[in-house]
Amino acid sequence: MLFVFTHASVFSDRALWMPAHSAVRAMSSSAGPTSPYTTLAISHPAENITHVELHRPEKINAMNKAFWREMVECFNEISSDPDCRVVLVSAAGKIFTAGVDLMDLSGEILQPKGDDVARISWNLRQIIVKFQETFSVIEKCPKPVVVAVHGACIGGGVDLITACDIRLCSQDAWFQVKEVDIGLAADVGTLQRLPKVIGSRSLVNELALTARKMFADEAKSCGLVSRVFPDKEAMMAAALELAAEIAARSPVAVQGTKANLIYSRDHSVDEGLNYMATWNMSMLQTQDLIKSAQAAMEKKSPKAVTFSKL
Amino acid sequence: MLFVFTHASVFSDRALWMPAHSAVRAMSSSAGPTSPYTTLAISHPAENITHVELHRPEKINAMNKAFWREMVECFNEISSDPDCRVVLVSAAGKIFTAGVDLMDLSGEILQPKGDDVARISWNLRQIIVKFQETFSVIEKCPKPVVVAVHGACIGGGVDLITACDIRLCSQDAWFQVKEVDIGLAADVGTLQRLPKVIGSRSLVNELALTARKMFADEAKSCGLVSRVFPDKEAMMAAALELAAEIAARSPVAVQGTKANLIYSRDHSVDEGLNYMATWNMSMLQTQDLIKSAQAAMEKKSPKAVTFSKL
Amino acid sequence: MLFVFTHASVFSDRALWMPAHSAVRAMSSSAGPTSPYTTLAISHPAENITHVELHRPEKINAMNKAFWREMVECFNEISSDPDCRVVLVSAAGKIFTAGVDLMDLSGEILQPKGDDVARISWNLRQIIVKFQETFSVIEKCPKPVVVAVHGACIGGGVDLITACDIRLCSQDAWFQVKEVDIGLAADVGTLQRLPKVIGSRSLVNELALTARKMFADEAKSCGLVSRVFPDKEAMMAAALELAAEIAARSPVAVQGTKANLIYSRDHSVDEGLNYMATWNMSMLQTQDLIKSAQAAMEKKSPKAVTFSKL
Amino acid sequence: MLFVFTHASVFSDRALWMPAHSAVRAMSSSAGPTSPYTTLAISHPAENITHVELHRPEKINAMNKAFWREMVECFNEISSDPDCRVVLVSAAGKIFTAGVDLMDLSGEILQPKGDDVARISWNLRQIIVKFQETFSVIEKCPKPVVVAVHGACIGGGVDLITACDIRLCSQDAWFQVKEVDIGLAADVGTLQRLPKVIGSRSLVNELALTARKMFADEAKSCGLVSRVFPDKEAMMAAALELAAEIAARSPVAVQGTKANLIYSRDHSVDEGLNYMATWNMSMLQTQDLIKSAQAAMEKKSPKAVTFSKL
Amino acid sequence: MLFVFTHASVFSDRALWMPAHSAVRAMSSSAGPTSPYTTLAISHPAENITHVELHRPEKINAMNKAFWREMVECFNEISSDPDCRVVLVSAAGKIFTAGVDLMDLSGEILQPKGDDVARISWNLRQIIVKFQETFSVIEKCPKPVVVAVHGACIGGGVDLITACDIRLCSQDAWFQVKEVDIGLAADVGTLQRLPKVIGSRSLVNELALTARKMFADEAKSCGLVSRVFPDKEAMMAAALELAAEIAARSPVAVQGTKANLIYSRDHSVDEGLNYMATWNMSMLQTQDLIKSAQAAMEKKSPKAVTFSKL
Amino acid sequence: MLFVFTHASVFSDRALWMPAHSAVRAMSSSAGPTSPYTTLAISHPAENITHVELHRPEKINAMNKAFWREMVECFNEISSDPDCRVVLVSAAGKIFTAGVDLMDLSGEILQPKGDDVARISWNLRQIIVKFQETFSVIEKCPKPVVVAVHGACIGGGVDLITACDIRLCSQDAWFQVKEVDIGLAADVGTLQRLPKVIGSRSLVNELALTARKMFADEAKSCGLVSRVFPDKEAMMAAALELAAEIAARSPVAVQGTKANLIYSRDHSVDEGLNYMATWNMSMLQTQDLIKSAQAAMEKKSPKAVTFSKL
Repeated sequence: MLFVFTHASVFSDRALWMPAHSAVRAMSSSAGPTSPYTTLAISHPAENITHVELHRPEKINAMNKAFWREMVECFNEISSDPDCRVVLVSAAGKIFTAGVDLMDLSGEILQPKGDDVARISWNLRQIIVKFQETFSVIEKCPKPVVVAVHGACIGGGVDLITACDIRLCSQDAWFQVKEVDIGLAADVGTLQRLPKVIGSRSLVNELALTARKMFADEAKSCGLVSRVFPDKEAMMAAALELAAEIAARSPVAVQGTKANLIYSRDHSVDEGLNYMATWNMSMLQTQDLIKSAQAAMEKKSPKAVTFSKL
Repeated sequence: MLFVFTHASVFSDRALWMPAHSAVRAMSSSAGPTSPYTTLAISHPAENITHVELHRPEKINAMNKAFWREMVECFNEISSDPDCRVVLVSAAGKIFTAGVDLMDLSGEILQPKGDDVARISWNLRQIIVKFQETFSVIEKCPKPVVVAVHGACIGGGVDLITACDIRLCSQDAWFQVKEVDIGLAADVGTLQRLPKVIGSRSLVNELALTARKMFADEAKSCGLVSRVFPDKEAMMAAALELAAEIAARSPVAVQGTKANLIYSRDHSVDEGLNYMATWNMSMLQTQDLIKSAQAAMEKKSPKAVTFSKL
Repeated sequence: MLFVFTHASVFSDRALWMPAHSAVRAMSSSAGPTSPYTTLAISHPAENITHVELHRPEKINAMNKAFWREMVECFNEISSDPDCRVVLVSAAGKIFTAGVDLMDLSGEILQPKGDDVARISWNLRQIIVKFQETFSVIEKCPKPVVVAVHGACIGGGVDLITACDIRLCSQDAWFQVKEVDIGLAADVGTLQRLPKVIGSRSLVNELALTARKMFADEAKSCGLVSRVFPDKEAMMAAALELAAEIAARSPVAVQGTKANLIYSRDHSVDEGLNYMATWNMSMLQTQDLIKSAQAAMEKKSPKAVTFSKL
Repeated sequence: MLFVFTHASVFSDRALWMPAHSAVRAMSSSAGPTSPYTTLAISHPAENITHVELHRPEKINAMNKAFWREMVECFNEISSDPDCRVVLVSAAGKIFTAGVDLMDLSGEILQPKGDDVARISWNLRQIIVKFQETFSVIEKCPKPVVVAVHGACIGGGVDLITACDIRLCSQDAWFQVKEVDIGLAADVGTLQRLPKVIGSRSLVNELALTARKMFADEAKSCGLVSRVFPDKEAMMAAALELAAEIAARSPVAVQGTKANLIYSRDHSVDEGLNYMATWNMSMLQTQDLIKSAQAAMEKKSPKAVTFSKL
Repeated sequence: MLFVFTHASVFSDRALWMPAHSAVRAMSSSAGPTSPYTTLAISHPAENITHVELHRPEKINAMNKAFWREMVECFNEISSDPDCRVVLVSAAGKIFTAGVDLMDLSGEILQPKGDDVARISWNLRQIIVKFQETFSVIEKCPKPVVVAVHGACIGGGVDLITACDIRLCSQDAWFQVKEVDIGLAADVGTLQRLPKVIGSRSLVNELALTARKMFADEAKSCGLVSRVFPDKEAMMAAALELAAEIAARSPVAVQGTKANLIYSRDHSVDEGLNYMATWNMSMLQTQDLIKSAQAAMEKKSPKAVTFSKL
Repeated sequence: MLFVFTHASVFSDRALWMPAHSAVRAMSSSAGPTSPYTTLAISHPAENITHVELHRPEKINAMNKAFWREMVECFNEISSDPDCRVVLVSAAGKIFTAGVDLMDLSGEILQPKGDDVARISWNLRQIIVKFQETFSVIEKCPKPVVVAVHGACIGGGVDLITACDIRLCSQDAWFQVKEVDIGLAADVGTLQRLPKVIGSRSLVNELALTARKMFADEAKSCGLVSRVFPDKEAMMAAALELAAEIAARSPVAVQGTKANLIYSRDHSVDEGLNYMATWNMSMLQTQDLIKSAQAAMEKKSPKAVTFSKL
């Protein structure tokens, strides 16, 4: 508790973490999934913010076939929605997610099609690649994605959150790279992204090779999450404020920042600088720069500026 | 002490860190090096676990010519031993290692052969490459390697442990990138692996440029080790339990996880995902997946499952 | 305070952090910028150490046109000065730097030349590349660069310090990736280097997307700085000691270490090892190795050894 | 003429280039585009061969909006059609293609949407990426694609054929990298693929910088095409025979070969070997290997073997 | 002769290769080097074309210290000269160049400074890097560089021409990778660029390992040059026409084409496409596109269009 | 014939291609394999030249288990033999090689060990990697390897020759990428190296996808071989002369050239230049440079200079 308080004070100059209660209430998910989705509830708790809620609480948000398909459709839509400038992902129910719904997917994975090892391999590869793309859509989405985790986040859940841009969690959250327990190497993102998300390679290896649980404090100290909150309500309020901070800024600046941060992760510094210079030779011609610079000189908040859609 | 206790409680659900005293006793190294080795003692403290002990305590485990050769032989053998599923590395005597045995190697390094700068350079390059391979065999070994450090770990010792997968240490451990003190840039792995092992680049640079000592707490907070124990005995017990957790899981899953974690370190996320999909198109066809999934559904521990050798 | 004391004890064996008061006084910057520079004060507080002080305190060290040009000239000179073995960067006045001087640069950036979008883009690209090189000179400088930050370090200041090798700060320091607030994606190094400098990707993204401030304690815990000091005076004394430690060692070893640490950041471990072996096939033939090894065997400090200039 | 004869004799041992007249007649395209396509005619001139014909002859196969969309749909369908093992691309009418239909696309490219340079840039980037993907589907199609060119192949036509695997042409064919003539750098594949398709960099640069025409003989001598035929009829007959040779072989072998040839183009030899070994650890378990090896020992043609669908 | 005639006919539709005698005369170099250069003669034989002539004929254009320095100055100036759109490089006197002037450089290379192998190595590395940059300026020059070679092109001459974009030669030209004959591996570009410039790796290796001469016909058939002319006069006339073709086109298109061709050489196809899309998101907004497209629709030559300076 | 004559005249200035009959006779292989090898005959036809002859003529040099093992042993020995400066590979009997000896290897490949798809895959991967290394030893051998091919060169033969540095053939030679005919993608080097060895991607794909034969003239025109000779005797004489040319030059220069040519193939030009500069900072300090430069100034042949062993 002390911990959170300490950090909250850090940001008191901009009241970043003051919960906006009405908006948080607007995020309540009592109504269930949003048509046409059966596993996701989509809402718009504040201007330019899209909230994607994993919403299959009676199955502790296990990832079934519908989920894999709906995530892609949902994020494709978000990617091209000019009214969305930031995405907030969280989950309904007692926990974030129990991971892959083995029951629902057992046919595809445990009894793959094909009359020959090579042909079964070929089909399995298509399935893996399709599942990998389910989480890569989060990374390819040009808008930043903030994820707020409460309770258990297991297996596929870790794949999902490592593809997000900013990770928050509540004190009761725990994380488990579960795949080794069911006889496979995690193949939809965890082994690829987790080592680039946290700073201790020894810890990454330990988590992936033993499937042990990691709790909130260790997740914070190793950098998996950048902030821990006492409970889900406080987390959601803060997450919404954080999203609002991002949504208030120039979408040209914000989305260019995300694009180049991802590019930098996978390239040398020189390559990253070259790409950045090429990117900004047009982006610096935006009116947002003039507007923002003027606001900055007048000591106004970015929230006071109106930016065109992107 | 509090610290360790706190973490132990984290894992109480699986009793991961309960010392198995008989096994730890089995690891006692009073008998000296294991033939044909003169610097290493090899034992099998539990099923599917190979223990490699640096065993030249009277010379504080300084790395002499024999050591460099024996490490390669030892790990080549381990790599192809189907009865070994995980390796535990530790050291006999007062400290982990004092690093390179300069006396023993001075001929090769300080008086290299050749009648011409270019020819001396050529010969030195062969020697460096050979020494680099000594530690790369740890990385190339398909089985995970857990290292448990007590006391001083200096120079070549840091090269060695950064090539391992999981690092543990006791409270009295300290680490020193010593090379700059003897007039050279560390060339057998530290400068290449340390920055990918811990998350603070400023700290990496400081350690490598000043040769200052880093003690256990800082090693834990920067992520070099993922766990600190009050003394060597507690550490060895926990290391053995950790190794047993890994050894109990599907070797197809475990070794596939190691292989892909190392691949991911050196490639972009997209490259890593592509390789992973290609890897798993066959590996998902293992019987281990069926066995493990069934055990998981029946709420059994992976330890209750018998896997074929790999 | 306890924190700093704890760490200081760690290094008591070499008295690394004992302030050398006379030297620190020598670094006082009352005299203003050093000709021919108008924004930088250059001094030599101890043997083989060059101190570069941002010195435009009345403008809170805002980076104007002169600064961008002078940094390049200054570091080019340092790079080829055999009397310099380590560089210390700090700032005069109340804060480290307020970042880019928008007023001074507004013409170039806000009203770029060209009668056509493509031609304006072309010119902007030249400007960005030129600014990128301003900080890349720090990285390309073969001598290690230690930076000591007090007070605010905003925008371009973060670009600057992430290009340095070792980062220290005082308790009152704070850091802000400010660019998104003025409508642009940071393009002179922060987005490229920050993710490779600290271990938590979630935090990097949060900082870059919200422009929130990060204070000294968080900067230490995430690894941006490797040490925090109670005030500027203590920091400068310790920075000077740290620089002296580096300056006392073989320049062949030190500069080879920097070169290979930077190479490793941008390459796979195998590539890094290959380059290192190629580098050291000549560098191991240095007399410094013999001298240092002899001193080590005689238990002398590296400071007792005299090395030739490089 | 002599040229073609010489080469035909080379292959006389397997009668590779004997035209199969009935099949060639089956490829006649008098019926126009195949529903639902308006610019493409799809046919199946022989078992396991899909023929894709650019079919907008009255507009000299200029690439209009419909074409860009239909290519993606068509190749996506082919990619997942187990009855297709090889694709043959050619064009109806007097020439192969005049390139992009500027009239049809002028709205999108010449008057892009957006109220700000940055937003126009953002939209243009989406359009370019979409167009790039139009030809990348050819490369991503797991089945080999043979292209047969007659008459002019201009601008977008060169982008198209460089994404194919094997290029043939008739004596009257000519090729032109036209983009520089209309004020842009070719951005949908030519500048990226042409240098990796032919061996003379000087020639690549000359073609791209001057937009000069290259005729069949030079295309053959520089390696753009691997074969030239006296007229379209002879080319189509030979192309069909070539496709039949590929279709007769194990699809596991053929598609694995294409996948790894493309991987090798973009990676070092070591990377390519590693990926190949990972690929073939499953693919060598195919029944096709047993069947093919047996046929080879019995001196039978691969055509005598029946392979399962892939 | 027949050869050249054949090719000339290829381009008859645009009279590309008709010599413009007056311009060629303007290129005569009787006046000697152009101040401030002592080894280069600079002229402007036609609008937007800069002619750089190696001009130290009495020393068969051997590359002395002045040459290495002047090349950098000259190309830096050309790079920022908006009146130059294409560069033509050729040589005065009997041959193109005899390569490095060993006499003039022997001090620097044969008697390098330093009192220690490591320090000599360090200094030699600076020298090599500086010499590498001498030819890299040609590659970094945003304007295309056409080189026309007559007579011998030896050693450093091959380094130079492989850094150019388009290579032409006369029938009497010959090329020699000479370095192995004087006891070193070619280190200023030949070993790096030649394999990416011609298509036969066996030939590259043979040339570099035996130092044998390659004559014009083989240079043409292997793709080192894209065209051979009967004598120097014919070559210079054609080179000028070729340069004029490039100079007549949109500089936005031409320079974007060069930049992306070089990027593509060093990256995978996917990387190249991504960079290209980022580049063109601004460059497609040029007025040159409208002007060029309109001219193309009106069947006018690009030469009829006036483009703004870049 | 005319062809060969033409090229021979090219080199008349150094009589490079004059057969040295006595040496060629010394290469006669009547005595059979050289102990301890059963498939290779090793000889030393001239100073500093090692001749490796595939010598299992009664089995048309099919690659059996012994061959795979012996190639590695043989080239490892050659690599560290200071008396060898160049290697010449050819074959005894009627043809170069029929490729893999399927009979001998069928157990390992067609009936791989393991009781599970994953475990069979794991074992197959080890076998593939081992076989890949068989040809990679040629590439890793620091001395240049010249290969002279007569008659058929099938399957594994193409893998072998693409790993060599210089390829020569006789008029009766032909080449066949045979793997697709036996149901697999070529996995020991052809798909990885062939595209980097010849300049026409269309041809590479055609050869690998159809398994058609390529004869000597096409092999020359596409650049697979750099020279064709009328018969084996003429080829061997010329190959020996070529090897002697290489053997006569500084081994520091020759082996540095090979190392950097291979490095350049797999890296960007910038990476290649950086590595080269690092390599040569020591290698330029060789006495060979002084000796060679002096000989060059005195117009002596490199053959007149005596170089130390390397």
